[in-house]
Amino acid sequence: MKQYTVAVLGATGAVGREMMSILEEYDFPVKELRPLASKRSAGKTLCFKGEETVIREAGPDAFKGVDIVLGAAENDVAKAMAPHILEAGAVFVDNSSAFRLYDDVPLIVPEINGEDAKNHKGIIANPNCSTIITLMAVAPIAKISPIETMVASTYQAVSGAGIGGLHELENQVEAYVKGEELQVNTFAHQIAFNLIPAIGSDSGNGYTSEEMKLQNEGRKILHLPEMKVSCTCVRVPVMRSHSISVTVVTKEKVSVEQAREAILSAKGVLLTDELKNDLYPMPLDTSGQDKVFVGRIREDLTNEKGLNLFCCGDQVRKGAAANAVQIAQLLI
Amino acid sequence: MKQYTVAVLGATGAVGREMMSILEEYDFPVKELRPLASKRSAGKTLCFKGEETVIREAGPDAFKGVDIVLGAAENDVAKAMAPHILEAGAVFVDNSSAFRLYDDVPLIVPEINGEDAKNHKGIIANPNCSTIITLMAVAPIAKISPIETMVASTYQAVSGAGIGGLHELENQVEAYVKGEELQVNTFAHQIAFNLIPAIGSDSGNGYTSEEMKLQNEGRKILHLPEMKVSCTCVRVPVMRSHSISVTVVTKEKVSVEQAREAILSAKGVLLTDELKNDLYPMPLDTSGQDKVFVGRIREDLTNEKGLNLFCCGDQVRKGAAANAVQIAQLLI
Repeated sequence: MKQYTVAVLGATGAVGREMMSILEEYDFPVKELRPLASKRSAGKTLCFKGEETVIREAGPDAFKGVDIVLGAAENDVAKAMAPHILEAGAVFVDNSSAFRLYDDVPLIVPEINGEDAKNHKGIIANPNCSTIITLMAVAPIAKISPIETMVASTYQAVSGAGIGGLHELENQVEAYVKGEELQVNTFAHQIAFNLIPAIGSDSGNGYTSEEMKLQNEGRKILHLPEMKVSCTCVRVPVMRSHSISVTVVTKEKVSVEQAREAILSAKGVLLTDELKNDLYPMPLDTSGQDKVFVGRIREDLTNEKGLNLFCCGDQVRKGAAANAVQIAQLLI
Repeated sequence: MKQYTVAVLGATGAVGREMMSILEEYDFPVKELRPLASKRSAGKTLCFKGEETVIREAGPDAFKGVDIVLGAAENDVAKAMAPHILEAGAVFVDNSSAFRLYDDVPLIVPEINGEDAKNHKGIIANPNCSTIITLMAVAPIAKISPIETMVASTYQAVSGAGIGGLHELENQVEAYVKGEELQVNTFAHQIAFNLIPAIGSDSGNGYTSEEMKLQNEGRKILHLPEMKVSCTCVRVPVMRSHSISVTVVTKEKVSVEQAREAILSAKGVLLTDELKNDLYPMPLDTSGQDKVFVGRIREDLTNEKGLNLFCCGDQVRKGAAANAVQIAQLLI
């Protein structure tokens, strides 16, 4: 079996570390693993398959001989590195939002539109985390009848802000229990025992950049360019799984039973829907694995072609790192 | 000024205690305060206006000479005590859901339909906590044009489950920090660092009893018997303020500007809506006071007659105890 040289760009972040761990877990055929990060981290090591692997500085010469680059860096780094990655002949599977809406960049959730990856020209984008989790839940319904509108309210974990977000919640909770003053660094406000109903920047129409991703990326992934989506993104004091309360209205009515069956037979999702037995998707249950849990499926009461559901998935894994490695698997 | 004998039924619970504290804070003209509870608590004392007040057992003879009973007990207690309260000639302002949908029982949010209280026949019902908070936010919009549909996803604090809910989150967080095992008693699952997307019992149509209250009670309070509401109720690890992400569709289009002005000039609500300055409703800010904060107001992207908003209010105060005392103020 062919072995590949895989670079992880932004290897020291929460998503970068998870990518390395998932490459190991999925037994991805790695010849050489090359962790790349900023100058600050260069020379330090990260563990891969039991061996200490030296971090190199991400720069023009870092990609020579690399087959696949898994990007877990911010937009500016992704943009700066893309030309060097392409020049080196590697494929760039990028988790930033820099290239997601480019016409010649496939935006991929393998279970939904894996076929689109074939048309790549060197860059494949990994969608936004809440978008992946929501679409995993609604794509089986959209296959029965196209989604016309979607209203979503998110419950997003602190891991969405990286390791800093995780530390912030840990530290605030510890300070609370010890009776000390809570420090606010990563988020705009205290997150422990609080909610922050704003994620991303102001996109000009009253929605945040994060809120518009579900419509913009969802249209591209589901091949539904007319789909209308209203989204409200809220940060909650949960560690690493995102949850979404969703109302979908389809072109033709889809029954609760049809939706259940579609989810039961779809890959990557788990029907978790027994209200009487206290069984529904919860962040604690989805954290640390790749399946998106879907439950609370019921007829919408405001529109006869509507369905309501609640879904939940690990933001660091299926929402980011696992989806990226699954895209890489499509390439080999 | 006339003074009143006020009984608090269920005085030892989170809402009952808050009712006593709000009677004091509002300087309600109390001649005698009579805390009533189960036999277990009888003989113990609660502090009111600096004096220890002895708790009596709630029973047939407990209401003699009482003018107003503020009910903070469960449905079965409310139902059992109502005949005795009426017999004693007192007015029963009841926070349970036992009588809310009875035709001859007004269901009151004073700022919205205080006039309806006049028609009472001895019982006035206090609405569900999430319902009060949501309606406080949307009623100013409904005054401009009637609401036809509403989609709501809640973020409900543990205080909604009473003192037991508050202790459960406190204890779980403390155990987490100390590295001890987390105990689950009050809720069906761990609530610290988790979400529980089910509140109330199965109402038979896939929705929970709690979820149906927003439609059933909302119709009565807003005088909109045709209003359709889909609600998803989610318990979050927040102490005592409930938040709700709401999409309202009105009969005629209401602009963002009109909605803002309506909220600015309405009583009991505070416009908290400056995304650029990180200003939006948050549970930490609303806890301990009576105003409902409303923000993130923007045009819905799925329906041109729709508006999205996020609102937040103290569940124990405006969501329960303060609203009940405000109803009592209408009576005097």
